Amino acid sequence: MISQDDVNGKVLYEDEHHRFIWLGADEKEEQGVVQTNQYLIIRNGRGTLVDPGGIHLFSRVAALLTRYIDLENIDSIFFSHQDPDVSSGIALWLGITKARVYISELWVRFLPHFGIMESDRVIGIEGLGGSMSLGKDGSLKIIPAHFLHSPGNFCFFDPHSSVLFTSDIGAAVFPSGGQYLFVEDFDKHLPLIEGFHRRYMSCRRAVRKWLSLLAPLDIKMIAPQHGAIYNGQNVKRFFDWFSSLECGVDIIDEIYG
Amino acid sequence: MISQDDVNGKVLYEDEHHRFIWLGADEKEEQGVVQTNQYLIIRNGRGTLVDPGGIHLFSRVAALLTRYIDLENIDSIFFSHQDPDVSSGIALWLGITKARVYISELWVRFLPHFGIMESDRVIGIEGLGGSMSLGKDGSLKIIPAHFLHSPGNFCFFDPHSSVLFTSDIGAAVFPSGGQYLFVEDFDKHLPLIEGFHRRYMSCRRAVRKWLSLLAPLDIKMIAPQHGAIYNGQNVKRFFDWFSSLECGVDIIDEIYG
Repeated sequence: MISQDDVNGKVLYEDEHHRFIWLGADEKEEQGVVQTNQYLIIRNGRGTLVDPGGIHLFSRVAALLTRYIDLENIDSIFFSHQDPDVSSGIALWLGITKARVYISELWVRFLPHFGIMESDRVIGIEGLGGSMSLGKDGSLKIIPAHFLHSPGNFCFFDPHSSVLFTSDIGAAVFPSGGQYLFVEDFDKHLPLIEGFHRRYMSCRRAVRKWLSLLAPLDIKMIAPQHGAIYNGQNVKRFFDWFSSLECGVDIIDEIYG
Repeated sequence: MISQDDVNGKVLYEDEHHRFIWLGADEKEEQGVVQTNQYLIIRNGRGTLVDPGGIHLFSRVAALLTRYIDLENIDSIFFSHQDPDVSSGIALWLGITKARVYISELWVRFLPHFGIMESDRVIGIEGLGGSMSLGKDGSLKIIPAHFLHSPGNFCFFDPHSSVLFTSDIGAAVFPSGGQYLFVEDFDKHLPLIEGFHRRYMSCRRAVRKWLSLLAPLDIKMIAPQHGAIYNGQNVKRFFDWFSSLECGVDIIDEIYG
């Protein structure tokens, strides 16, 4: 269970200039709806919202957000990929903020199908990603994670907090009432992540390509879009496990049934 | 260009009991929005709607549909996968029809993020697919196309019309004003499909797995969710080309930039 202290959000990293915030849990936890995490980065008063989620979550996430920052100070919204639980609230978010949206250029022409929106506020990212500004004196390092699962998928590393946002990578599927914020025991966490990664991730070659890009980074925390956050020794344990996983097309005969 | 005769839809196959209908083109053809095809199958008066599309298209598709069938006679809606251009209109479609929705079980828990909806009307398909009823005396053969591109993706073969609906497989990206309904010259069509398939499809192993499932079928027409329809000798030409394509993780160093 998420403690009552944390249900409305938790600051994962904080210094004089910079905060990396997890935006709380859905207390009603509806059956049959996948659990998601939203994040907010605030650097010198300017905000970046990360995978804010679908129409379904909009009112809860918008209300929590305003505990930390005025909506007018949100400059950017990062969408890791095109799935409904990530980005289907786009028209609502563009409506209540002045932010620009960053998403893989593979999905720029698909987003208008979510409803009426201003395409000139959507920035397509491609290839190796590059960097995304956090205002005058900071930036995120955008890291491709294509085919994990989406063909156009991006993670990012925040060098100010040493947090790696990993999109669907690292996701856990909790049993009803079983959500927790941080992975405490990796071995007990494994059964909650294994099935998801075997079925949704495309193949080990894509996994290892992604891991090779992370090698130079000093990652202290992994923040996924679903499930629990990895810190301490569980960061390395997750990467080691993921590196040796057979998944997707590696086990295609099993998946096709 | 789509002729004025066809802009409101075209019957692709017709007999006494059965019709397979392409549901027309968007005349305003907005810049920056990916073009999509919607299809309707009517068998003995009962309807199945295929990849009806997002919020963006809802009013046009709903209006065209009623030229062919009363909304109350639509029993089923088939969603090939979770992308916004396929399925973001789900709450609207469940609102104006009594239909049940069929989609990969991988996406059932993601759909509520599109908005409020009745989950008991959503049927999850998995593994090898199976069959989907068209009423008292007909059915579609559901065929997995996982990782092409979505990890949970389904096509279907309609044995009554011999049409294979292929979701994103076979998709073309037309230049502005350049849409056409049927592929006439495969060699000229190739530049419109090659880039899309190389970038969005996960790898050749997934392609060949899918093709192996098609071998026993007598396919006369390929109807994709984007681009133009393949018939005659272009059916085989497309399969031959797709079988030898390197794509996705096969060319991962190129894609990562």
